[in-house]
Amino acid sequence: MKILVVNAGSSSLKYQLIDMDGEKMIAKGLVERIGTGKPGHQKQVVGKEVYEVEGVMIDTHVQATEMMLKALLDEEKGAIRSMNEIGAVGHRVLHGGTKFSASVIVNQAVKDAIRECIPLGPLHNPANLMGIEACEKVMPTTPQVAVFDTAFHQTMPPKAYMYGVPKKFLTKYGVRKYGFHGTSHRYVSKRVCEFLGISQLGTKMIICHLGNGSSLSAVVDGKCVDTTMGLTPLDGLLMGTRCGTCDPAVVQFIANNENMTVDEVLNMMNKESGLLGISGLSNDMRDVDNAADNYHGDAMLARDMLVYGIQKYIGSFVAAMGGCDMIVFTAGIGENNGALRERILTGMEWMGAKLDHARNMACADGHATECVISTDDSKMKLLVIPTNEEIMIARDTLELVKH
Amino acid sequence: MKILVVNAGSSSLKYQLIDMDGEKMIAKGLVERIGTGKPGHQKQVVGKEVYEVEGVMIDTHVQATEMMLKALLDEEKGAIRSMNEIGAVGHRVLHGGTKFSASVIVNQAVKDAIRECIPLGPLHNPANLMGIEACEKVMPTTPQVAVFDTAFHQTMPPKAYMYGVPKKFLTKYGVRKYGFHGTSHRYVSKRVCEFLGISQLGTKMIICHLGNGSSLSAVVDGKCVDTTMGLTPLDGLLMGTRCGTCDPAVVQFIANNENMTVDEVLNMMNKESGLLGISGLSNDMRDVDNAADNYHGDAMLARDMLVYGIQKYIGSFVAAMGGCDMIVFTAGIGENNGALRERILTGMEWMGAKLDHARNMACADGHATECVISTDDSKMKLLVIPTNEEIMIARDTLELVKH
Repeated sequence: MKILVVNAGSSSLKYQLIDMDGEKMIAKGLVERIGTGKPGHQKQVVGKEVYEVEGVMIDTHVQATEMMLKALLDEEKGAIRSMNEIGAVGHRVLHGGTKFSASVIVNQAVKDAIRECIPLGPLHNPANLMGIEACEKVMPTTPQVAVFDTAFHQTMPPKAYMYGVPKKFLTKYGVRKYGFHGTSHRYVSKRVCEFLGISQLGTKMIICHLGNGSSLSAVVDGKCVDTTMGLTPLDGLLMGTRCGTCDPAVVQFIANNENMTVDEVLNMMNKESGLLGISGLSNDMRDVDNAADNYHGDAMLARDMLVYGIQKYIGSFVAAMGGCDMIVFTAGIGENNGALRERILTGMEWMGAKLDHARNMACADGHATECVISTDDSKMKLLVIPTNEEIMIARDTLELVKH
Repeated sequence: MKILVVNAGSSSLKYQLIDMDGEKMIAKGLVERIGTGKPGHQKQVVGKEVYEVEGVMIDTHVQATEMMLKALLDEEKGAIRSMNEIGAVGHRVLHGGTKFSASVIVNQAVKDAIRECIPLGPLHNPANLMGIEACEKVMPTTPQVAVFDTAFHQTMPPKAYMYGVPKKFLTKYGVRKYGFHGTSHRYVSKRVCEFLGISQLGTKMIICHLGNGSSLSAVVDGKCVDTTMGLTPLDGLLMGTRCGTCDPAVVQFIANNENMTVDEVLNMMNKESGLLGISGLSNDMRDVDNAADNYHGDAMLARDMLVYGIQKYIGSFVAAMGGCDMIVFTAGIGENNGALRERILTGMEWMGAKLDHARNMACADGHATECVISTDDSKMKLLVIPTNEEIMIARDTLELVKH
């Protein structure tokens, strides 16, 4: 069966068509600038064939979905002959609140529940919902599946997901940690055990998903017990433009001193902070790395803060699990930045982690493959496992529709 | 020499008179409800003698200081015959910003600098300054010394004290971690080495100051390298009424949903959160413990959150230091709550910490003494060291004035 994986943003529609016989990606595309009042853009790649549309106004997600199907069905540059070849559509949905701890087939109740989670994911959930409804309209007989970024983390115990604010805010508004990147953490935590040929049962691991957005998760027996992101993806680590966790009084202090509203402060914390705000240069770790290697003081500081923050969270998760068997790196930075992995793992001998320098540097800069990067005598296993959220969404979708 | 140690709050004046020959506390007193418009209260204990004043309006700190001296000089229930017996006064000052990394003799420049730190310590620094100026007025020839809660943490490296917000906020307003309880962390980290008969050099330790306000510090070679409190004492652990660190978006989410100002949210986070806000019962750990022992669900949750948060910070500091030789418990909860220490250290065998149950429980509930609570074969030493901030302030004061 072929599964279409859709990731609908507020002004974009990303998609992949995956043939589940062998789990091969056969088409990959992007429709951009939907409903922005500016001419849109579409690009699709199928093997060596590139299908591109420019200069057309794209007003709605329904229109973008029609463009996606037209491109997939294109006789010359498409990937399928008939829409019926698409067995099901899997949608990435940001926020499932506490309502969803696993993927589900979409029906009216599911859509209502996703809508009820809009206050928790005000930027993403409305777009995800538009993507679902557009696909329902254009492919009315094809099953739709929702796969939630938060679902994997629903196994966290209360002591891990509660904040220290009065409990009534949990009851009234759902103020708690949810965690994100769940599909990636789930994929990697499962895949690493397949790769090592071991059962998930009996394992304690830390998954380091390091990209422009970053989060760590602590996974015991294949189940998430803690994660660094929280109520929103701002929580936890220093990221490209996000400040991560801090004293909540920082919000008050900046708001009062700069005469800013709380929304303005939070916008600044999400978009102008992190690597960008500290280095003053870029949100891209590659730029920060280059500058730091050339002794740019603030770039060195930004990198030090990132490394130190990851080290501290690793330590906290080792404590949370009462030990740890393996640490796995994934996503853009985690897969490709061997030097950063080395900085993180230097000085981690106290917990039995010994990095193999040559193995680690062989798995970097576009050469990321599934590999062990610890020495053979390291008590704790260190690995790189490239993430693949789309495959995970496609697998969930297949699993749900084949019954 | 006799040293008077003064801790001036906005409406109170606490004091101790300490004879530095043998470091004996010879008088202890409190003047309350200063400038509140309500009749004040004074109580002083010298040996078995209790001196008490009630029903008098106390308008200013100068008046409170005069009452303090009158009580100390009281022929029947006092401790000294002449004001000249007081060799110097040591003042506790909350916030020294980045200006003070050690205690100093008070002069005009020092007072100006304390005043400049008022934006960082708006509740405490003005009161601390009033205490200093009142003593200067009443004892014009006696040297005054300022001892800062933040000073010990000034050795933290930038990667530990920086938040992820744009660096300009450090430059403009001093937004960074400062840390508090510094005098306690300094006393305990020094005292534990004296107690064990070892040098501070070469040691890596974690000090757990657990009271109604709580903070942990990571101390290498006797110098602080990290601490849990931050810009304000709200940061870090769950406390009696404080929520501790969280996603800054929680401030925004509650402000917008409850139609509260950022100041109102932060007030709630400081005064209605923590053990009180989660348990719904009390900010006092003894009450929460009692209720949790009787299976009160929210009290159990509050206790679980506290224990789990301490465990995670311990893990993060072990990672920050690249190992740890000892963990030391101090302050009200840390010294007296043996059961809580046991909860914290259970499951910490991964890092070589083995608690001796009998030793631990012998050092609790009012029987706290300096003692080792780990087993003889524990790789990591676990200890209880009762804190004594007043002695530390008196020692600093003596050291500075004797030259």
